[in-house]
Amino acid sequence: MAEPTLRYDTISFLSDFGYDDEFVGVVHSVIRSLAPPVRVIDVTHAVAPFDVRAGGLALARSTQYLAPGVVVAVVDPGVGTERRAIAVEVGDGASMLVGPDNGVLAPAVAMCGGATDAVVLDRDEFHLPAPGATFDARDVFAPVAAHLCLGVPLHEVGMPIDAASLMPGTLPVPRDEPDGTVTAEVLWVDRFGNCQLNIEPELVTSWDGRAVYATDGGPRTMPLVESFAALPAGGIGMVLDSYGMIAIAGNRSSAADELGLAAGDELTLRPPGDEDEPAGIVTAVSISGPGQGEH
Amino acid sequence: MAEPTLRYDTISFLSDFGYDDEFVGVVHSVIRSLAPPVRVIDVTHAVAPFDVRAGGLALARSTQYLAPGVVVAVVDPGVGTERRAIAVEVGDGASMLVGPDNGVLAPAVAMCGGATDAVVLDRDEFHLPAPGATFDARDVFAPVAAHLCLGVPLHEVGMPIDAASLMPGTLPVPRDEPDGTVTAEVLWVDRFGNCQLNIEPELVTSWDGRAVYATDGGPRTMPLVESFAALPAGGIGMVLDSYGMIAIAGNRSSAADELGLAAGDELTLRPPGDEDEPAGIVTAVSISGPGQGEH
Amino acid sequence: MAEPTLRYDTISFLSDFGYDDEFVGVVHSVIRSLAPPVRVIDVTHAVAPFDVRAGGLALARSTQYLAPGVVVAVVDPGVGTERRAIAVEVGDGASMLVGPDNGVLAPAVAMCGGATDAVVLDRDEFHLPAPGATFDARDVFAPVAAHLCLGVPLHEVGMPIDAASLMPGTLPVPRDEPDGTVTAEVLWVDRFGNCQLNIEPELVTSWDGRAVYATDGGPRTMPLVESFAALPAGGIGMVLDSYGMIAIAGNRSSAADELGLAAGDELTLRPPGDEDEPAGIVTAVSISGPGQGEH
Repeated sequence: MAEPTLRYDTISFLSDFGYDDEFVGVVHSVIRSLAPPVRVIDVTHAVAPFDVRAGGLALARSTQYLAPGVVVAVVDPGVGTERRAIAVEVGDGASMLVGPDNGVLAPAVAMCGGATDAVVLDRDEFHLPAPGATFDARDVFAPVAAHLCLGVPLHEVGMPIDAASLMPGTLPVPRDEPDGTVTAEVLWVDRFGNCQLNIEPELVTSWDGRAVYATDGGPRTMPLVESFAALPAGGIGMVLDSYGMIAIAGNRSSAADELGLAAGDELTLRPPGDEDEPAGIVTAVSISGPGQGEH
Repeated sequence: MAEPTLRYDTISFLSDFGYDDEFVGVVHSVIRSLAPPVRVIDVTHAVAPFDVRAGGLALARSTQYLAPGVVVAVVDPGVGTERRAIAVEVGDGASMLVGPDNGVLAPAVAMCGGATDAVVLDRDEFHLPAPGATFDARDVFAPVAAHLCLGVPLHEVGMPIDAASLMPGTLPVPRDEPDGTVTAEVLWVDRFGNCQLNIEPELVTSWDGRAVYATDGGPRTMPLVESFAALPAGGIGMVLDSYGMIAIAGNRSSAADELGLAAGDELTLRPPGDEDEPAGIVTAVSISGPGQGEH
Repeated sequence: MAEPTLRYDTISFLSDFGYDDEFVGVVHSVIRSLAPPVRVIDVTHAVAPFDVRAGGLALARSTQYLAPGVVVAVVDPGVGTERRAIAVEVGDGASMLVGPDNGVLAPAVAMCGGATDAVVLDRDEFHLPAPGATFDARDVFAPVAAHLCLGVPLHEVGMPIDAASLMPGTLPVPRDEPDGTVTAEVLWVDRFGNCQLNIEPELVTSWDGRAVYATDGGPRTMPLVESFAALPAGGIGMVLDSYGMIAIAGNRSSAADELGLAAGDELTLRPPGDEDEPAGIVTAVSISGPGQGEH
């Protein structure tokens, strides 16, 4: 295997392609053919079809952990239209992000301190010939990413554009309501049914480490604890999740299933009052004892 | 890590093993143990269980994009029987395809210009000892592929056989009916619900860029457009897909769900007549404007 | 890419993280960042959430095929509690296993001849700073595995502990009942619906190669055959599976679906008697003829 000197040796790849088809494998193959030594890391391909916001959030959550290199992120309902295909430089060349200009890259770019350069991918010689216009990940984004790894300068793969012209991402902010409640939103429901919210942990801390969620079945007091296992079995509470955000979670149960929550849902939270049930037997700051993980 | 000189440095791997079990991981591990520097690219493992035709089609769609090397394709309902295990050379050694002789390799071999050599994998010293006879991917195909990468000649891993004796693939052809309609077949439904058909794009072009599909709910006129986003939201039409084939598709909706179509289904198409509804507001050759991909 | 001398060059990774989120990709990214040349092999990530036993069994099945190196296995309902995070050496350093001390590593450790050393992962300098306590795979296990690959000695990543103190795995054993029947348990249902049992093949051999399963629909005589295809189409029988265990299986059909079996279910088996139906047209030791795999 030839070992050319690479500018970048890792491509991190996220999409909404799922695992039912050969889309992901074909993109890997294109990169393997064009830039053999480059390693491709699959961030995830299970973004809901066409869900640009969910893809942008998943990429943003991952960003600080990604190996330096090129990021390819493709959630692209506008593929084949005149939406722009772009490459965005961050950190003065520390990494490059490649994908459609529809907001999917924006949260990650912001987390990297913003774009230091950007181009529109209008140089066909760095693309594959396309039998149809519906698979830019294979025909445009992967080949461009491979060429960037091989050292082709950013300004050779496309015409420079103003970074300020890039489509921004949208992130919902919680709303402080006149009645003292807060309207939060579920950003993400993970495999285990944990529901990440868009509120600051300090909000719940300022509420004595508990929040009351007004559900259809009545108010539900949720303590903020440090681990899933610190909740009573089958109980629902709040956990400081692995990204430092508040998530509604269960102990070996799906909070999303129990509460009927999905990504994008709004919910009303308020501080606990005298009339509320105490949050069960849980001490908010407790760490459960040894053996908790094994029963 | 030892860096032996490799004859091939990539194994492309396709199967119907799914992602629920450790089958794929074990095959990767076997290759990693026998030929450490070889990279394994997963084409897909979501072929429907036992669906040899679907596996062969997925491999054929991918073939032109695969890195040169060894291909392992395993959809193998006859594992453990006397169906032959084979390795097929294409391009006078440009690549090798390894798998069961049941047709799953045949479309890809054909796309590579046909077999230039073939053997039956009857040399046990290149296999793993098998506790049972039901996992030839682990015990036969992966070890043989690893040895081919390491430079073991094809004729050492098995006895030469006549390439003409290999099981052919079967590909349905559309039928021109006496009444002027065409009976097409769905070759593939992808994650997004796009339904790839077995007809030539020229057929629809010759029909003024539209086809009428006789559904249970009445005739449905479908325009041929260049991108999913060129269809009205929720509308159904035809797209020249990423392989240059005609696919029935929606704009951010699943055509398969809306029309109740699955791979293998037949459908009747005809040219539009005066009595047919026009194909909505869509101009067949339009490319939608900027911004279409973002809202 | 820097090519440091590695102590281990492969990390085999198993979890219950599924494929819906970026968890697996983030772990890969962490390893790629800390130990770039190391290859990560995904054993499987589809272990049922929190199912420590299923994870341990999947790892044990894979163990003999894994490339030497570090194994990371994370099924960890107790994450964030005081359950121990451990690294276990086997084969006097041939491989290392890293994960929670809850039994998930135990069957694999046993298959490797037992622990030759073990530590509790209490050295924070080999971990990542954690915004929350719920993702030890990213913050503890992956970084420790990367450092072990880079040559950091086991006793530097944590305090030595007595291997005898490690949480054991639990494996159900079949029960010989007073009435001559055997109560077996389903260890694993794979993608194809094959149901692996916890009985020795010799038991069925001693029963003349057949076993009678008492189902709600009456007794069902199941022959032991050598391949799925040796069963009548749609028929149910027993196969010596790829791990040398007995599995209840169908020929291109799901035995689990037909019999309503799931992992963990118990079932009663007995030797066939004169009153039982013969096992159809199947010869227990037959290998089906050529062509069986292709029709």
